[in-house]
Amino acid sequence: MRVGLVQQKFYGSKDLTIKESLKSIKKLKEHGAELIVLQELHQDRYFCINQNIDNFDLANSWEDDLLFWSNIAKENSIVLVTSLFEKRAKGIYHNCVVVFEKDGLIAGKYRKMHIPDDPGFYEKFYFTPGDLGFEPIETSVGKLGVLICWDQWFPEAARLMCLKGADILIYPTAIGWFDEDSDDEKQKQLDAWITVQRAHSISNGIPLISVNRVGKELDNSCVIDGIRFWGNSFVVDAQGSFIYRAGDKEESVVIDIDLAQNENIRRVWPFLRDRRIEDYSEITKRFIDSV
Amino acid sequence: MRVGLVQQKFYGSKDLTIKESLKSIKKLKEHGAELIVLQELHQDRYFCINQNIDNFDLANSWEDDLLFWSNIAKENSIVLVTSLFEKRAKGIYHNCVVVFEKDGLIAGKYRKMHIPDDPGFYEKFYFTPGDLGFEPIETSVGKLGVLICWDQWFPEAARLMCLKGADILIYPTAIGWFDEDSDDEKQKQLDAWITVQRAHSISNGIPLISVNRVGKELDNSCVIDGIRFWGNSFVVDAQGSFIYRAGDKEESVVIDIDLAQNENIRRVWPFLRDRRIEDYSEITKRFIDSV
Repeated sequence: MRVGLVQQKFYGSKDLTIKESLKSIKKLKEHGAELIVLQELHQDRYFCINQNIDNFDLANSWEDDLLFWSNIAKENSIVLVTSLFEKRAKGIYHNCVVVFEKDGLIAGKYRKMHIPDDPGFYEKFYFTPGDLGFEPIETSVGKLGVLICWDQWFPEAARLMCLKGADILIYPTAIGWFDEDSDDEKQKQLDAWITVQRAHSISNGIPLISVNRVGKELDNSCVIDGIRFWGNSFVVDAQGSFIYRAGDKEESVVIDIDLAQNENIRRVWPFLRDRRIEDYSEITKRFIDSV
Repeated sequence: MRVGLVQQKFYGSKDLTIKESLKSIKKLKEHGAELIVLQELHQDRYFCINQNIDNFDLANSWEDDLLFWSNIAKENSIVLVTSLFEKRAKGIYHNCVVVFEKDGLIAGKYRKMHIPDDPGFYEKFYFTPGDLGFEPIETSVGKLGVLICWDQWFPEAARLMCLKGADILIYPTAIGWFDEDSDDEKQKQLDAWITVQRAHSISNGIPLISVNRVGKELDNSCVIDGIRFWGNSFVVDAQGSFIYRAGDKEESVVIDIDLAQNENIRRVWPFLRDRRIEDYSEITKRFIDSV
């Protein structure tokens, strides 16, 4: 499977940002990409940086956005993983991945299940938690286990996608540093973020793609200074080994992923064979208090 | 919490091996260790390297082993994590961690839940799967989430220990390389082993200790040449950052672990707050076949 990924900054407006994305998509297609993955909320700035009810207007274009990206998938004859702000009903909005088939039809949607909320990342204000569960999306290039950003920290999400037959895990992301943190702390955060995702690959015997944004975006509410999105998009194989690691600037590349390795690695490290499923039921508890 | 750990080789006999362990325990106690962790099946060679019914005799000393290590814990006034071959009943044997209190009493037991089985590691032949579940062991130094080796690859085990209030995860281990594998493959295996465990620390906000054996042990059945146990015992803090990493030779060290960090890191990265427990129930399935 030849995958293209686009690690990009916000260009000051939705129009300019999309224009840059389209250039990258065109280039990746020319290099043979069959599947292209864009970062989380790639159309615009990361508006969750503060709480402002006017920002919900950014979802007013939801229906048009679907048509637009459907056309892009069709024109380029690619499977396209987009990450959009879904307006579902009055007062119900989702952080939603829409996957388009090569013919422009919608292959499937995933609504972000785990919603973060901390200074600079006020997603619980904007996004209703997803209600589509953890379902891989069947496409012409394979069964895509698409999850979004904060989902990265939850092994349950990766495991469920794997148990439902996903061929690959894909995480569009928007994560970054605060400039005021020490270099040591920044390095620890980045390292933890990469490590936890590589572990999903290892414990499930499945390749993984993570696509993050870059650039600094300011908080005009002045609660924080802003977020410097750390890039570092990466691809690992079914053993969690790096196939590709980006830096912290814009990059768009095509990567070849061998999906046949999933079977091979699971024969050597048969973790799925040995799960003690009869003893896992308390995973569905919030916490188990001492008696 | 000041923890001591002993990364050791097999000295050709049980007596000689234990003698070396006791020297290390004495030294670690002198350096202030309150808790000491020994590696998996530390009394003897890694007998699961081949299938031989005579090896079950190694468990005949089970009751004596309990008395012996109880005395060591009491004499040194330490909490002691031992890893023993339990003879429970005729034909029922377990790979069992026994934790002793400073007064020599048994604080708790953990019977290995996930049992591996592949060339050189024939554990399904020897060990009945554990039936005590994933229960942390309450001790005077904290609540110990003790798991064993192959359990390392299963995020469910770490999560359940954490949900049940474990303060720390502890993995006695016996894992190694085959000399005939390439250096690149060996590095990938070691890296995956470290990565998957660090991820348990990160996703649960909990420190983790992993203690592995060293040295080469031969397979006298000649199915394989032998196993070179790779050492590389390590300790990470509640953010998954290394506090200590051993090499591939014998080492015994004391490490200070700050259990107060668990609360601090979970406030900054509140993964436990955001779990979608209502959507995790299929974790208890073996696999979810497509309809």
